[in-house]
Amino acid sequence: MLQQRIPDPCALVIFGASGDLTRRKLVPAIWHLHHQGRLPQAFHLVGVARRDWDDDLFRQKMRESLAEFVGPLDDSARDAFLAKFHYVRGDPGDPATYVALKARLEILDRECGTEGNRCFYCSVPPQIYRDIVEQLGRAGLSCQHRDHHGWCRIIVEKPFGHNYDSARELNQALHSVFTEEQIYRIDHYLGKETVQNILVFRLGNSIFEPLWNRRYVDHVQITAAESVGVEHRAGYYDQSGALRDMIQNHLLQVLCVIAMEPPSSFDAESVRLEKLKVLKAIRPIRIGQVDRYAVRGQYGPGENALGYLQEEDVPPNSRTETFAALEFTVDNWRWQGVPFYVRTGKRMAKRTSTVTLQFHQPPHLIFAQTDALAPSTLTIRIQPEEGISLSFNGKIPGPDVHLGTVNMDFSYADSFGGRTPEAYETLILDCLLGDATLYSDSDWIEQSWALLTPILDAWQAPSSGEVPSYPVGAAGPEEANELLGEAWRKWAPL
Amino acid sequence: MLQQRIPDPCALVIFGASGDLTRRKLVPAIWHLHHQGRLPQAFHLVGVARRDWDDDLFRQKMRESLAEFVGPLDDSARDAFLAKFHYVRGDPGDPATYVALKARLEILDRECGTEGNRCFYCSVPPQIYRDIVEQLGRAGLSCQHRDHHGWCRIIVEKPFGHNYDSARELNQALHSVFTEEQIYRIDHYLGKETVQNILVFRLGNSIFEPLWNRRYVDHVQITAAESVGVEHRAGYYDQSGALRDMIQNHLLQVLCVIAMEPPSSFDAESVRLEKLKVLKAIRPIRIGQVDRYAVRGQYGPGENALGYLQEEDVPPNSRTETFAALEFTVDNWRWQGVPFYVRTGKRMAKRTSTVTLQFHQPPHLIFAQTDALAPSTLTIRIQPEEGISLSFNGKIPGPDVHLGTVNMDFSYADSFGGRTPEAYETLILDCLLGDATLYSDSDWIEQSWALLTPILDAWQAPSSGEVPSYPVGAAGPEEANELLGEAWRKWAPL
Repeated sequence: MLQQRIPDPCALVIFGASGDLTRRKLVPAIWHLHHQGRLPQAFHLVGVARRDWDDDLFRQKMRESLAEFVGPLDDSARDAFLAKFHYVRGDPGDPATYVALKARLEILDRECGTEGNRCFYCSVPPQIYRDIVEQLGRAGLSCQHRDHHGWCRIIVEKPFGHNYDSARELNQALHSVFTEEQIYRIDHYLGKETVQNILVFRLGNSIFEPLWNRRYVDHVQITAAESVGVEHRAGYYDQSGALRDMIQNHLLQVLCVIAMEPPSSFDAESVRLEKLKVLKAIRPIRIGQVDRYAVRGQYGPGENALGYLQEEDVPPNSRTETFAALEFTVDNWRWQGVPFYVRTGKRMAKRTSTVTLQFHQPPHLIFAQTDALAPSTLTIRIQPEEGISLSFNGKIPGPDVHLGTVNMDFSYADSFGGRTPEAYETLILDCLLGDATLYSDSDWIEQSWALLTPILDAWQAPSSGEVPSYPVGAAGPEEANELLGEAWRKWAPL
Repeated sequence: MLQQRIPDPCALVIFGASGDLTRRKLVPAIWHLHHQGRLPQAFHLVGVARRDWDDDLFRQKMRESLAEFVGPLDDSARDAFLAKFHYVRGDPGDPATYVALKARLEILDRECGTEGNRCFYCSVPPQIYRDIVEQLGRAGLSCQHRDHHGWCRIIVEKPFGHNYDSARELNQALHSVFTEEQIYRIDHYLGKETVQNILVFRLGNSIFEPLWNRRYVDHVQITAAESVGVEHRAGYYDQSGALRDMIQNHLLQVLCVIAMEPPSSFDAESVRLEKLKVLKAIRPIRIGQVDRYAVRGQYGPGENALGYLQEEDVPPNSRTETFAALEFTVDNWRWQGVPFYVRTGKRMAKRTSTVTLQFHQPPHLIFAQTDALAPSTLTIRIQPEEGISLSFNGKIPGPDVHLGTVNMDFSYADSFGGRTPEAYETLILDCLLGDATLYSDSDWIEQSWALLTPILDAWQAPSSGEVPSYPVGAAGPEEANELLGEAWRKWAPL
């Protein structure tokens, strides 16, 4: 029988309750948790936003969200769920908002049994995080008061800073009100099934971990490709770019999960320590080395598709990268000499996130093979079609011994069927349970920015040269291929 | 471009040309080789048998065989093929047969360009092998004559002896006429694609061989199950039994291919040396230990199925085993402490031949898993549905980390489509090419009999107790389960 963990009674407060993330991701995720009996009986949700809504209108709006993003539901089950929803109207910078919020939370504690346990979810633009944190502190809502019973946690969405200094300042602001243990910095990649499965695959079996090192692995590739362009997010994206939007958080997290030493336990402290050790083992890329280890690109116009510079809200002289590829060197015993190549981009051939381990060739081939052998690879598909493939050499049927590439495949959907939980379900539940294993801590965040800030600085320098363009549907600019150096290293096909 | 080896011009002489093996297996295999252009232009087949056939009747009979066992063929292609068929009528013990055969071969050399190259195929009952060998020698057909141009090889079918002494005598008889290099002892298991693919899988990739040892493998299982009973072969089978019929040859060969050290080259000398080393490293089971390391069984009667003792031509007090399971210990550095379990039987749940490597459990589990973990296994399916499966632990989708067994599968048919060549095609072609890699040599044969003869002797002893019975469709008698000893070791489901 599988054991299910159920959180304490609590209230979840969402700042930015009228926003897109709330209706598209958070409320559907919370519904699924509720529907599967993963929430406590005394669970209440308090939405906070500027819009002139009340409890009823909030519930109606969320009813519409559920219809759109979950599908048809049983009326009475849905209404019982929405009855746990509450709305506090207010500006996140206005102290009055927090007075009203505090009053509402105290009513819930008294009347609904939420027992003083609170989780604050900052689903707002990043420039507002600090306001919320400060106001929560001033209103005495950070539970640091000696006479407060119950726990208090805060979830901070991405982006967490835009460079090393800003991330550090944000951490300082958070730490002035909350302890590190109260802070849950979200990275929805870590909530994805496949990212967690990487650890189960490696450490729940005895047969993969022996291969997981420089003796057998030639190099590692981590790819997150999108087929779409910036869409309606150009205003945000042009200030961010691919490096900040995808690599600093998601892909470096995946790299850490792939490269980390086995922790002694799957708990926050052990896992965070090992991930931080990986980041600290990555050789810093200095400003003068950026052209050797990093490639950027911007998508050009295509058939029926605008180039990045033609997109609405993008300045025509923007130098923001929509593609980035980096080579990381992990200076430790396990990975010495094994490059980690990381790439991400928009308007690429298709939407796919994968990790590929390419293995060394056999040290000696006993067969009279004249054709070149394809290297064995292990590919972990994070999205879509989560799964794992192993590609290796088999005998081509026939009276001669000729080798050809064959594949073994494992698909999550085929193996388990049913619905794979969304990352937000796992992450929200974990936070309510006080399990920060899948969240980023302050040291990791600062270290990741420390690694990338020199590259950002180099690319922003006026002397940094043109941003190469790449065609829609390509795998990035030509320059990305040169990054791999050795002839036997090729980017995995998308 | 794949390189194809083509044999020299030659004549293939089949003793037992009117028999079942010739029409069911050999002639269809030779057709496929011919059809794929794998035979030399000057290839001729000479059938030898007692029946009163001539060239025309032999061709007509073989035409019928092709229709039955290959299917509809293009008339002119088939007739061009059959035009290469010739028939010599005679008793294999009669010197006159060999005079006629020799005359026919010399005509083929002169008129059809077979250049004195001959391959003799003994597709006859084993008691006739020695007659043929002696007569070939006396007739000067072993090509040992100084003035003979061309090569000469002899293929000997199974069974090769019925115990150590008889195998040794047969080897001596062969060696009195042929050199070891001329002798091709067939084991059709070695011609099977999957058996060869075991070596490609292990040694054509760098990622499996590191796991292929006592550090990662808990034990190995080799199974050859048949669903049928003795059918029309009771006369032969009751003299043989499962140990002789399947284990001495096929399953010990598979064991050797699994357990051998990597040879430096895939050639006969290197491969035979490594296989022989495995046999020599197997700890002999002495007569007094047989009950500890060996289990036998006889199938009982079932619904609509006769028990072995009720089958036609089986003596009602027969003690011949229709099931055998053995534990072998390989005393070398690679396999110390890793038992090899081998089993075979008739009237089992289904027809399947597989090799399963069960791996150790992870040395330490970091996840809070309460249920017992299934061990990771690698299964190589030899027949039917040739392929390879890897079974390991993955994360069951959901917000908690629970581990469950998942499978990765590779199927020959799905990967390559088309027709997989029959073992006989590979083996006949190899012999015509002078490549003995997939054939058994005299040392291997004698060593395998040396290992099994004490078990045969123990089972034949009047004091050896009852032969346990097992129900039709079972996985053998109950006693077979006890052979595995440790609680975490179970026979793989059929």
